[in-house]
Amino acid sequence: MKIGIDLGGTHIGAGLVNDKGDIIMRETVATSTDHEYTVVLDQIKTLIQKIQVQARNQYTITQVGIGIPGILTRDNTLILECPNLGWKKVALKKDLETLITLPVYMGNDASVAGIAENVYGSTKGYHNAVFMTIGTGVGGSIIINDQIITGVHGVASELGHMIITENYYDCNCGKNGCLETFSSATAIIKLAQQRISEGAKSTILKRASSQLKAINAKHVLDAAIEDQDPVGLECLESLATHLGIAIANLNDILDPEIFSIGGGVSQAGEKLLDVITQAVALRLTYPDIAVPKIVLAKLGNDAGIIGAAYLDQYV
Amino acid sequence: MKIGIDLGGTHIGAGLVNDKGDIIMRETVATSTDHEYTVVLDQIKTLIQKIQVQARNQYTITQVGIGIPGILTRDNTLILECPNLGWKKVALKKDLETLITLPVYMGNDASVAGIAENVYGSTKGYHNAVFMTIGTGVGGSIIINDQIITGVHGVASELGHMIITENYYDCNCGKNGCLETFSSATAIIKLAQQRISEGAKSTILKRASSQLKAINAKHVLDAAIEDQDPVGLECLESLATHLGIAIANLNDILDPEIFSIGGGVSQAGEKLLDVITQAVALRLTYPDIAVPKIVLAKLGNDAGIIGAAYLDQYV
Repeated sequence: MKIGIDLGGTHIGAGLVNDKGDIIMRETVATSTDHEYTVVLDQIKTLIQKIQVQARNQYTITQVGIGIPGILTRDNTLILECPNLGWKKVALKKDLETLITLPVYMGNDASVAGIAENVYGSTKGYHNAVFMTIGTGVGGSIIINDQIITGVHGVASELGHMIITENYYDCNCGKNGCLETFSSATAIIKLAQQRISEGAKSTILKRASSQLKAINAKHVLDAAIEDQDPVGLECLESLATHLGIAIANLNDILDPEIFSIGGGVSQAGEKLLDVITQAVALRLTYPDIAVPKIVLAKLGNDAGIIGAAYLDQYV
Repeated sequence: MKIGIDLGGTHIGAGLVNDKGDIIMRETVATSTDHEYTVVLDQIKTLIQKIQVQARNQYTITQVGIGIPGILTRDNTLILECPNLGWKKVALKKDLETLITLPVYMGNDASVAGIAENVYGSTKGYHNAVFMTIGTGVGGSIIINDQIITGVHGVASELGHMIITENYYDCNCGKNGCLETFSSATAIIKLAQQRISEGAKSTILKRASSQLKAINAKHVLDAAIEDQDPVGLECLESLATHLGIAIANLNDILDPEIFSIGGGVSQAGEKLLDVITQAVALRLTYPDIAVPKIVLAKLGNDAGIIGAAYLDQYV
């Protein structure tokens, strides 16, 4: 049995995960609002100890894995940057190992979600899989020959900042043309707001109670899929086309077996998947030889805990 | 000692390669003009036997490696397509192993060039390296943790057909926006011809003996570097900018230690490298954390033989 920990800016989730990928015990705590490292470290320790107490005499716990919303060193021992928590250069693995008696593994949160899908979800059984999470931004993880590609500086699989083509606004990272400025919740909300501001009629506004600022990605995608709303359809098409370019390029580079699309936006489901699959098909270099499977991710919020528990198998 | 074979549409080169990467014996033959498979197979066998005769009583030959200008199956045992030779689905490895008494390894020619640079050239000592060859088209090879990434269908590292942005002409592959329609010899010749046809004055035309159709990549790059010719500089800038986008994107995806630029265009040397390096620097997602080395390839025409001889170590 392994403990997986999903470390977030608002909550920390911990779970005891069995060898089938089921979470059989679970503990959660609100992340200390000041995000003070030593306080959060203590919170993590307490969560682990609570699970250890419950599991006592029943299960043997062999290790702890933690998904980190930030950048780690190549060997996954040091957190270099953790923007949501305001941390820089913290040795969470080492610090935690001195507090508990178990080995600790760390991994980037997108890597962890990709691992969870590979162990227990949409890419199970595939040795070469790319996972893309489409939410506020775009994250990813790449598994080649059953190993996570972390890169020599620990920042590989940074799929949201691939430059796709020129865009009408810059990315938060300072660059122009990043995938996540086209194919994220943020991007389609911005595009819908822009079109409606320009005078386009749309059911999106009604779905958002006539509040331009209240528009969310679900309003946009529901308008496209349920209402055939032109603005919604333009946003869906833009998201899918640019994601299609990114997937076709990744297919040229890595030629994996499967791509899995997760994150909040993926809840738009089969219609979204169809449009993405068509966009990719138009851009494949070897449509007769190398056509990847493209599927929706299966695991939701539990991916963070499940994937963290299995980190040791992929590093 | 190993034999490396560079199989091309016009010539077949074979060499005996020692463990320092030196070619110590060499044989060449003009490829049979009809490209008939059984004839070329016999030519390859004869080249190998000539080297075996010369090496007899002096060196032990353990294996043969062949660089193939085409697409192989994932396990590198079957040639799926070899456009320059007009071959489809030929079992060169198996056929050759029945004719000679040595194990035969095959690999894509761009992979082979990347291996040669890694064994004996510009990326020696690096475990994670991307090699890009910029000639008539753009090819590439990716080494991650000392292994060539071949992909599940054998077509990974197809770097020339990554879509970079919209272009004014379509690629031979049928897609629009492929890297090699911006950053290849063909692309800069086309752009120079277009500008001169539009009436731009340029020293390129003089270098090409006033023949628009005679313009080659060296004319364009020499005009840029030696004459500061505006058309030449526009072509150089276009090549470097789009290659810069490709390298920055590959850095986001793979985060390797080093990129090596080879092929005919790379003979433009340090000035070309400077412009490419600047183009990449502007587009890095983590300029403080993950800045790759970018270098020129060191090996020229011998890379095909040297890399082929070392194929067994990278598969």
